[in-house]
Amino acid sequence: MSRAEWPYGTPGIPDHLFKRVSGIPMTKQEIRAVVISKLRLFPTAVVYDVGAGTGSVTVECALQARGGTVYALEKDGQADELVEANARRFGLTNVKLVPGEAPATMEKLPPADRIFIGGSAGALAEILQMAHRKLKSGGWLVATAVTLETGPAILDFLTRQGYDQVEAVAVNVAKIKQVGSAHLWQAENPVQIIAGQKPR
Amino acid sequence: MSRAEWPYGTPGIPDHLFKRVSGIPMTKQEIRAVVISKLRLFPTAVVYDVGAGTGSVTVECALQARGGTVYALEKDGQADELVEANARRFGLTNVKLVPGEAPATMEKLPPADRIFIGGSAGALAEILQMAHRKLKSGGWLVATAVTLETGPAILDFLTRQGYDQVEAVAVNVAKIKQVGSAHLWQAENPVQIIAGQKPR
Amino acid sequence: MSRAEWPYGTPGIPDHLFKRVSGIPMTKQEIRAVVISKLRLFPTAVVYDVGAGTGSVTVECALQARGGTVYALEKDGQADELVEANARRFGLTNVKLVPGEAPATMEKLPPADRIFIGGSAGALAEILQMAHRKLKSGGWLVATAVTLETGPAILDFLTRQGYDQVEAVAVNVAKIKQVGSAHLWQAENPVQIIAGQKPR
Amino acid sequence: MSRAEWPYGTPGIPDHLFKRVSGIPMTKQEIRAVVISKLRLFPTAVVYDVGAGTGSVTVECALQARGGTVYALEKDGQADELVEANARRFGLTNVKLVPGEAPATMEKLPPADRIFIGGSAGALAEILQMAHRKLKSGGWLVATAVTLETGPAILDFLTRQGYDQVEAVAVNVAKIKQVGSAHLWQAENPVQIIAGQKPR
Repeated sequence: MSRAEWPYGTPGIPDHLFKRVSGIPMTKQEIRAVVISKLRLFPTAVVYDVGAGTGSVTVECALQARGGTVYALEKDGQADELVEANARRFGLTNVKLVPGEAPATMEKLPPADRIFIGGSAGALAEILQMAHRKLKSGGWLVATAVTLETGPAILDFLTRQGYDQVEAVAVNVAKIKQVGSAHLWQAENPVQIIAGQKPR
Repeated sequence: MSRAEWPYGTPGIPDHLFKRVSGIPMTKQEIRAVVISKLRLFPTAVVYDVGAGTGSVTVECALQARGGTVYALEKDGQADELVEANARRFGLTNVKLVPGEAPATMEKLPPADRIFIGGSAGALAEILQMAHRKLKSGGWLVATAVTLETGPAILDFLTRQGYDQVEAVAVNVAKIKQVGSAHLWQAENPVQIIAGQKPR
Repeated sequence: MSRAEWPYGTPGIPDHLFKRVSGIPMTKQEIRAVVISKLRLFPTAVVYDVGAGTGSVTVECALQARGGTVYALEKDGQADELVEANARRFGLTNVKLVPGEAPATMEKLPPADRIFIGGSAGALAEILQMAHRKLKSGGWLVATAVTLETGPAILDFLTRQGYDQVEAVAVNVAKIKQVGSAHLWQAENPVQIIAGQKPR
Repeated sequence: MSRAEWPYGTPGIPDHLFKRVSGIPMTKQEIRAVVISKLRLFPTAVVYDVGAGTGSVTVECALQARGGTVYALEKDGQADELVEANARRFGLTNVKLVPGEAPATMEKLPPADRIFIGGSAGALAEILQMAHRKLKSGGWLVATAVTLETGPAILDFLTRQGYDQVEAVAVNVAKIKQVGSAHLWQAENPVQIIAGQKPR
């Protein structure tokens, strides 16, 4: 039952509410809030979360698209279990786990209204190509980049494919940690968020 | 009718969709997405937006709390008109404009589930005191700080009042601007977001 | 005489001490301090400042390499005058202005101990190639990148040429501006600094 | 002999050249480069490094003020040894270690041309007071702040004491780390640098 974990309507669920497994990445809550905003979700949306990792973006999407379906694509078997555990934890029945390696696993899925690429495991170019094929006209593709190389590559792809409203946003987040009576600023790694709308 | 301007369920409305007036501040879209996430809105919430400015946070809150009421407190008459214009633009009927100077204008409002302080015009201490009085137990107070002084003052207030889950997040955003075939990074001013839950 | 303007031995000269002309770019003081640190200057160094702009990096290098020579390469005639004005302002006699378009203008210069690329005006690939040719073995190449595209391109070039100790650093700077009794944080645009040492 | 470790004239020594001990803090190289620039050092300067930690700022100051003296104030005995080891490593003979707790240990030192406060161990107010007393007219006081609280406190102190050219700069640094063929951005914690000149 999701009420217990997140009884609110707005995205940006605190990180500690998710089940975590060491070594499996998670899009942090503030970045996730921005990612969800770029995805422009609606209740019946069909969404792919490519490289789902912990499943935090999957969960947020599924909460916003309760009448739709979120396909969580994740090749790591341990992460697959984690995604399912988190979907259960938030009471979600509209999450479909898609194990195996993207982009091959995308092939048979129904066309997507929204695609989020949070990880590409070295197959970025192929995943972008397939995502572009599967995305409906007018749909939005959003990706996060945490390396020097991926941000420009994604932007270049969207631009060359003629996407509309293409944007890239770099977000640096720091949070306080109490140390005695003072509050130390602690940085999170910078993330670039790239988004664009497939031409109609 | 809000459909035309923002037919989606998720917050983080692009800045250019709001009517703007030179000199009236606006919480930018990525910061707004994070602010809304910290506010943990729900459909019937009673929300104050203190120092509403352009009304962008008011609009986002009102879209998320369609069965509730958002009180937009703003002392600048020109901004008041702007808030109303933006509420109309997004088809909202649950926004109540509260002209005049906070904290006095808060006094007669019904108790709040959520209070956002986006501007305090030199009366931060008094506004925090009144906000604390008007906020229901278990409600959330969220504020943005854009000066060196305000972040620590807000955090200190929440801590001393015994708020739960108090946090401060510093967010630096940069966006690309196309210049020829290249994309220049342009920074937005850093914002601190401070949040906490009034003890039950 | 440089004493009047900057009677100190350390780099990072305040921006307001330079003569400025609207539209001519300048590497800001904190970024300049980091750039100079990556250049690892010494008293007799031969330095190129490619895309000198205002000449702020030229001036800092010339102050650190008083027994060497700093070649300021700049194609914009108005910027050329500005570089010379700033060199005079700081009492420098070891600055040589090189008007015209890089990389062609680099061809006849003596080999460099250090090369800084602060601007490339669309000819980055050619400038990097020539810079690599002119740089002495063991010399350092440092560049700043302000667009999404340039940072990765420079890093890739240095890596493929087998440079040692290659690094990229992203620096976000914000400064306070007094507004009434408060101090507003104002962001400067993010800059990436890429550096590496030519193999011996 | 310092040649071996850092044969250059410019500050911003790479972090890995310093001897490190786990748990003893160090001002990182890019922040250090900016700090040194704000200190406006000169060859015969008398400098205090309060809360010297690893001694990295002490070393940089001593390299820039070879005809002066750098007093490294540090209460932690293990850090004291580390400061001395690093001073030796860089061949410095103008570093004087001052063990014990500041501000008491400042009392008997000769007046300072420059004071850097890198750590205050809970005695910030007292250290600022004493630093102000010991600093010569026209001298510069520079401090780093890594908590939410310290930056505003230092700025407020300098402002109330009538310091000139008071400034605060927030610096966020991220660096790449090679992971396979990609380069992951890794953030360092944000640091505020506050500086001002004691009135003449």
